[in-house]
Amino acid sequence: MRLSRYFLPILKENPREADIISHRLMLRAGMIRQQAAGSFSWLPLGKRVLDKICRIVREEQDRAGALEILMPTIQSADLWRESGRYDDYGKEMLRIKDRHERDMLFGPTNEEMVTEIFRSYVKTYKDLPLNLYHIQWKFRDEVRPRFGVMRSREFLMKDAYSFDLDFDGAKAAYNRMFVSYLRTFTRMGLQAIPMRADTGPIGGDLSHEFIILAETGESQVFCHRDYLALPVPGAATDFANDGEIDGIVKQWTTPYAATEEMHDEAAWAAVPEADKVSARGIEVGHIFHFGEKYSKPMGAKVMGPDGKEHFVSMGSYGIGPSRLIAAIIEASHDENGIIWPESVAPFDIGLINMKVGDGECDRICDELYKAFEAAGKDVLYDDTDQRAGGKFATADLIGLPWQVIVGPRGAAAGEVEIKNRKTGERETLPVAQALAKLGAKA
Amino acid sequence: MRLSRYFLPILKENPREADIISHRLMLRAGMIRQQAAGSFSWLPLGKRVLDKICRIVREEQDRAGALEILMPTIQSADLWRESGRYDDYGKEMLRIKDRHERDMLFGPTNEEMVTEIFRSYVKTYKDLPLNLYHIQWKFRDEVRPRFGVMRSREFLMKDAYSFDLDFDGAKAAYNRMFVSYLRTFTRMGLQAIPMRADTGPIGGDLSHEFIILAETGESQVFCHRDYLALPVPGAATDFANDGEIDGIVKQWTTPYAATEEMHDEAAWAAVPEADKVSARGIEVGHIFHFGEKYSKPMGAKVMGPDGKEHFVSMGSYGIGPSRLIAAIIEASHDENGIIWPESVAPFDIGLINMKVGDGECDRICDELYKAFEAAGKDVLYDDTDQRAGGKFATADLIGLPWQVIVGPRGAAAGEVEIKNRKTGERETLPVAQALAKLGAKA
Repeated sequence: MRLSRYFLPILKENPREADIISHRLMLRAGMIRQQAAGSFSWLPLGKRVLDKICRIVREEQDRAGALEILMPTIQSADLWRESGRYDDYGKEMLRIKDRHERDMLFGPTNEEMVTEIFRSYVKTYKDLPLNLYHIQWKFRDEVRPRFGVMRSREFLMKDAYSFDLDFDGAKAAYNRMFVSYLRTFTRMGLQAIPMRADTGPIGGDLSHEFIILAETGESQVFCHRDYLALPVPGAATDFANDGEIDGIVKQWTTPYAATEEMHDEAAWAAVPEADKVSARGIEVGHIFHFGEKYSKPMGAKVMGPDGKEHFVSMGSYGIGPSRLIAAIIEASHDENGIIWPESVAPFDIGLINMKVGDGECDRICDELYKAFEAAGKDVLYDDTDQRAGGKFATADLIGLPWQVIVGPRGAAAGEVEIKNRKTGERETLPVAQALAKLGAKA
Repeated sequence: MRLSRYFLPILKENPREADIISHRLMLRAGMIRQQAAGSFSWLPLGKRVLDKICRIVREEQDRAGALEILMPTIQSADLWRESGRYDDYGKEMLRIKDRHERDMLFGPTNEEMVTEIFRSYVKTYKDLPLNLYHIQWKFRDEVRPRFGVMRSREFLMKDAYSFDLDFDGAKAAYNRMFVSYLRTFTRMGLQAIPMRADTGPIGGDLSHEFIILAETGESQVFCHRDYLALPVPGAATDFANDGEIDGIVKQWTTPYAATEEMHDEAAWAAVPEADKVSARGIEVGHIFHFGEKYSKPMGAKVMGPDGKEHFVSMGSYGIGPSRLIAAIIEASHDENGIIWPESVAPFDIGLINMKVGDGECDRICDELYKAFEAAGKDVLYDDTDQRAGGKFATADLIGLPWQVIVGPRGAAAGEVEIKNRKTGERETLPVAQALAKLGAKA
C-alpha cells in the first residue's frame, strides 16, 4: 500500500482524553476514532490489526474443533426471560423496543441464543461433543466507559459455547479451550497466565481468566514465577487426545496463580519469596464451565446412551479481539510508539523513501516494493513528500516490525538501511541482501 | 471437514414459513436459523458462504482503491440531527436510549458517521480522492420482514463512501465503483445489469441499481438484450485510468435498462421487439452520487488548489452480502437443492463414503480427503453412518460443485465416481485420475 493513497490520520499531539498508553497510541497512530462514549470506528490501520487478531483466534478455535457460526446482535427479550436473566442483567444491557413495541436487546453475550439453536436441532448424544463459536459485536452499557477499546461499550467478542452429555465431557471441552487459549495468546506475542477466577454473572463452578502482566494492568494478580517459563503447547498438539490435553492443563494450573478476588493468603504464603510474582494484570480471555445453568431452564437435552434424556452440560469461552489490541500495545511499546509482534502487525514492512523525486531513491523503492509484495509481504510504502524526520517518527509510532529506509546517499551506492523496530538495530545492506533478509527475492 | 464432527442440521421437510425458494433451501440446508422476525443466525455452512462472498466484495473494493474501515453499529442521534435525517428517517430506524437517556440508534446506513470521520481529519484536496468502505451489520425495522435473508431486519452491508473535490472527481469515483460492481457480481457467478434508479431517501442525482434477472425477482425490470452478452471488465482493468473506466461505464449504460420506477415507455418503444427483455429482477447493489447533501450541513470541506474551501462531493455504494446469498440461490438451484457457483461454494468438494466401515471405502476416502486438503481444496467428507440415499440427497441439497462418491464395488476396483452438481454429469475414474481432475496430486 502506498501511503499517498492510504488513510492514516496521524495525530502529532497526545490526545487529552486518553488516560492509558494504548488508547493514546491508537489515537495517535490513526487506528481508531471515538464516535460516542465507549464507541469507536476502526480506521484502516486499526482494521488491519483487528483482522489479524481475529484470524489467529479463528485458526486456534478451529484447530480445537470449535465450529464458527454468526448470531445476530439484536436478540429477543423472550429468550432472556426463559433463562431468567432479562430482569437480572441490570443496566449494562441495552434494552430496545422495536416498532411493534416488542422488547429486544443488543446482545451482551449469547448463552441463551446458542442454547436455543442447540435445542432446536440436537437430540442425541451421538451428535456431541459440539462447540459453536462466533465473533460478533457486543454492547454493554457501562456507566463510565474508558481506556479506549480496553473498556468500550461496543466491543468485538469471540464467544464459544460447548455442549456435552455430562460433566466429564464438559471438562474435556473446557480443557480444549484452555489449551487453545494458551496457543492463541502466545501466537500474538503475549504471555498469558491462566488464573482461577470468580464465575460472576454467567454462573458456574469452574472458571479461569487469562491474564497478561503489564504495569498498566487493571487489577492486582499473584502467581508463581514458574509460569514465566512454562512451555506453550505447539501446533502439533492433538486436541482429540483428552489425556494429552488434560496433561497440559494440569501443568498450567499447578503452580499458584490468582486474581485479587480469588487470592488465598495461606496458599500464597507457601510460595517461596523468590518465586512470588505480584503484579498488575490485564484480562484477555475468560472461560467458564457452568453445567446445566442454561440447559435446564431452557430445556436443552439429548438422549443419552442409557436411553434417557439428559440436560446438556455447557461452558462458554470468551476472548475480546478489540480489547486484545489494547492489551498488546500495553505490553509492547516504547516512548516512540507501538511495537507490533510480527503476527499481528498491520503491515510487515514500512518502506521509507527519504527523498521522493530523487531518481535512484524512487527506482530502488519501486523495486523493493514490488519484490516484497511479490513475496507476499504487506508493505506500507511512504511515498509522500513529507520530510524524512516526520517519516521516521510516523514509522516508529505505527510500529511495523521492519523499516527499510532508502536515502539518496545509500541509493547512489545501491544500499538501503534496515531497522528492526523492536531492537532498534540498524544494518546497511545492498538491495539484493536487504530483500533476502526480509524474505523476498532480488 | 468430517461431517461427523460438523454441525449441519438438514431439514427433511419444507419449512412452512418460507415463501421463496432461497429461504426454503437455506433453512433446509442448515445454513441459517431464524431468531426473531427478520433476524437470523448463520450456521456453519451459511457462515462459510457469507465469508466467501465478503472476501470477493473486499478484494474488488480494494482493487478499485477503496480502503476498509469498520464503524460501530450503534450511533449517536446527534450526528443524524446534523444532517437532518434523524426526524426524517421514520420507523425503519431502530431508536434506542442508553442508560443515561441519550438518544442512540442502530445504524441503518453510515453517511453521517463517515462524513464525521472525514471532516475530522481531511483538510486538503491533496488527500483526495478518498473512498472508505466497511462491511458491518445494519438494522432496518421493516414492518413486515420476509423472504428470509433477502429482506431481513438485521442484515450485512458493504457500504463505501467516496469523497472528492468536485463533481468530476466524484463522477470518476462513481465510475470506479460501477466497474468494481460489475466484476464483483460476475465473480460470484451472477449476471448483474446496471439500471438507472431513483435515488430515494439517500438523495442525489445519479444512481444505478445492479439487478439480476430471476423469475422470483421482487420487481419488474426492462432491458435491452445486448446486456446479456456485454464483456465484463477483467482483472487487469486499470482503475487508475479514468478514461478506461469511463469507457466501460459508457458501454454498460448505453443500451436501455430501467427498473419499473424509472421506466420510460417512449425509450422502450424504440428498442426492437426481439431485443426487449422484460423480466423480474432482484437488486443486489445500489450506487449513488449525492454531491454535497451531507458535506454541506455537516461542514465537510477541503482546501482546493484555488486556495478556497470546497464542500466535498460524495457518493455511496452498497452491496448486501447476506441478501446476495439469497439472490445467488434464486438464480442457481434446481428441484434437488442449491447449485453453488464455485467461487462462493461453502466447500469445493463433497466426498461421500457410501459404506463407512468397509475397509477399502474408508481407506480410499481417507486418501482422497488428505490429498484434496493438501491441495488447498475445502472438502466436506460425509463419514456418517447414514444410508447412501440420504447422503446423496444431502449432497444435492447443499449444492457443492463436485461430489466424489466412493462405493464398495468401485473401491474394490480402485475407482470412484465424480459428479458435477450443476450439469449432473457423472464419470467413473481411477483414484489418481479423480484427484488430478479436481486439482490434487495422487
